[in-house]
Amino acid sequence: MRSPADNAQLALLLEVAGTPKPGNVDRRREYDDLRFEHFLAGGVGAGTGLRAAEAGAPVGWAFEESVAGMSHQGGGNTQFGCLLDLVPLVRAAAEGRLSVTGVKRVCRETTVDDACGFYRAFDHVDVTVGDPPPDLDVPDVRRGSDAVGDLRERGLTLWDVMERSASGDGNAREWVEGFPRTFAAAAGIYDDEGPATERVARAFLTLLAQEPDTLVTVQHGSAVAREVQERAETAKRDLDAASDLADEFVEREINPGTTADLTAAAAFVALERGWEP
Amino acid sequence: MRSPADNAQLALLLEVAGTPKPGNVDRRREYDDLRFEHFLAGGVGAGTGLRAAEAGAPVGWAFEESVAGMSHQGGGNTQFGCLLDLVPLVRAAAEGRLSVTGVKRVCRETTVDDACGFYRAFDHVDVTVGDPPPDLDVPDVRRGSDAVGDLRERGLTLWDVMERSASGDGNAREWVEGFPRTFAAAAGIYDDEGPATERVARAFLTLLAQEPDTLVTVQHGSAVAREVQERAETAKRDLDAASDLADEFVEREINPGTTADLTAAAAFVALERGWEP
Repeated sequence: MRSPADNAQLALLLEVAGTPKPGNVDRRREYDDLRFEHFLAGGVGAGTGLRAAEAGAPVGWAFEESVAGMSHQGGGNTQFGCLLDLVPLVRAAAEGRLSVTGVKRVCRETTVDDACGFYRAFDHVDVTVGDPPPDLDVPDVRRGSDAVGDLRERGLTLWDVMERSASGDGNAREWVEGFPRTFAAAAGIYDDEGPATERVARAFLTLLAQEPDTLVTVQHGSAVAREVQERAETAKRDLDAASDLADEFVEREINPGTTADLTAAAAFVALERGWEP
Repeated sequence: MRSPADNAQLALLLEVAGTPKPGNVDRRREYDDLRFEHFLAGGVGAGTGLRAAEAGAPVGWAFEESVAGMSHQGGGNTQFGCLLDLVPLVRAAAEGRLSVTGVKRVCRETTVDDACGFYRAFDHVDVTVGDPPPDLDVPDVRRGSDAVGDLRERGLTLWDVMERSASGDGNAREWVEGFPRTFAAAAGIYDDEGPATERVARAFLTLLAQEPDTLVTVQHGSAVAREVQERAETAKRDLDAASDLADEFVEREINPGTTADLTAAAAFVALERGWEP
């Protein structure tokens, strides 16, 4: 039997194999400097941190460990956001409380030390983030471990950081709400039919059609993010149309990374619920 | 840093992603009942056994554990032969003696208990093996754990079993010779250029051109195995030609599985030597 950490690792692999996932690296598409094998190596490298999360290590520490392990490959940031979602989900699963309420409690229980681990994780890879809005009352994540003193002085927990970031970040929003979109998408994967790679692709398209993707907003602005969302709505029931869209988005370097993060999280929950690829 | 067990897991994933690998499941090709995701799940599931091998568990026990973990997916036998090669290599790497001499010593030191673990592993998945030659002086592996009493009575170690099977089985031959083809192919991957998926494909084709593949011999006879070998010789320097060959072999259900096992082993050694995908 696979443990929660094993299922999280498998979810990372199924996410990148899922095809077509317009704009993202998938089984059939990649970028010259961000290739399929970088995600395989990232998924394997994250294992130690995921197993630490399963065994009860602090969430922030396990997250930093998983990101550090992930970073030993030539593609740069492959699965930072996926791991941010997966670590509390793995912990909740290991504690037998993998539900909206259960994972929300894991997130609420995070401490200032967890916030420090989260910021330190930014030292290991270049994560694409936008300029923080002027009213955002947490240290800029781009400061990485330099922000640790600040976090301690102000007594900010990881929950505080996520709650204050939620309005501008799809992963942070999911975190503080108990992963409602993730659980819904997991049910979709579980009830779907066909090969794993196609189920994952349909889950990705469904999530992409629900909300503008944070990473697309950061990289291309909100008008493009809305266009991406609308076009996913049309493509989500037709993988051939999605395939054309995938070619176009790769060409335009439109990379809905936050939606891919939630897709990996959804695949994890589906595996934990008994989905057997 | 990835540990030897991590590198073995990554090698399993890079092997299946390597394309084109004529006749085998790869990033672009699969069979209806044996799909890409089955290999991803198999690779993740094997992790516990591989980590046991790294930590010093007996070779036969670690092998059985890795096969049992691999088997939790819908495709049946995905990586039995790969794991048979990887387990002693992981052990040798963990002990700092990853060389022909070092791994041969690991194999020579195996016991009757290790042979029992090897036979028990056949209980977990259906492995394609031919009828044993009449003069083969070891229990038929298809008996699985039923052969354990016999092994104990006759005092057969895993080394004995492999040595006596070497003439008819490419993996057993590699095992008792200290993995010379594996180390040579690993050097090829390390010195090669380009994406990991292509390096792995070229290593596979080079190995396939060297010797008739055991699994092809079992499933299609030695004339077809020789044909496959000759055609790999022509295709090994031209991945486009290899791609046509891959389509043809999948169509004819010619599956050079033993060569894929050695390719995974070679990818492992290359990773241990510092190859960074």
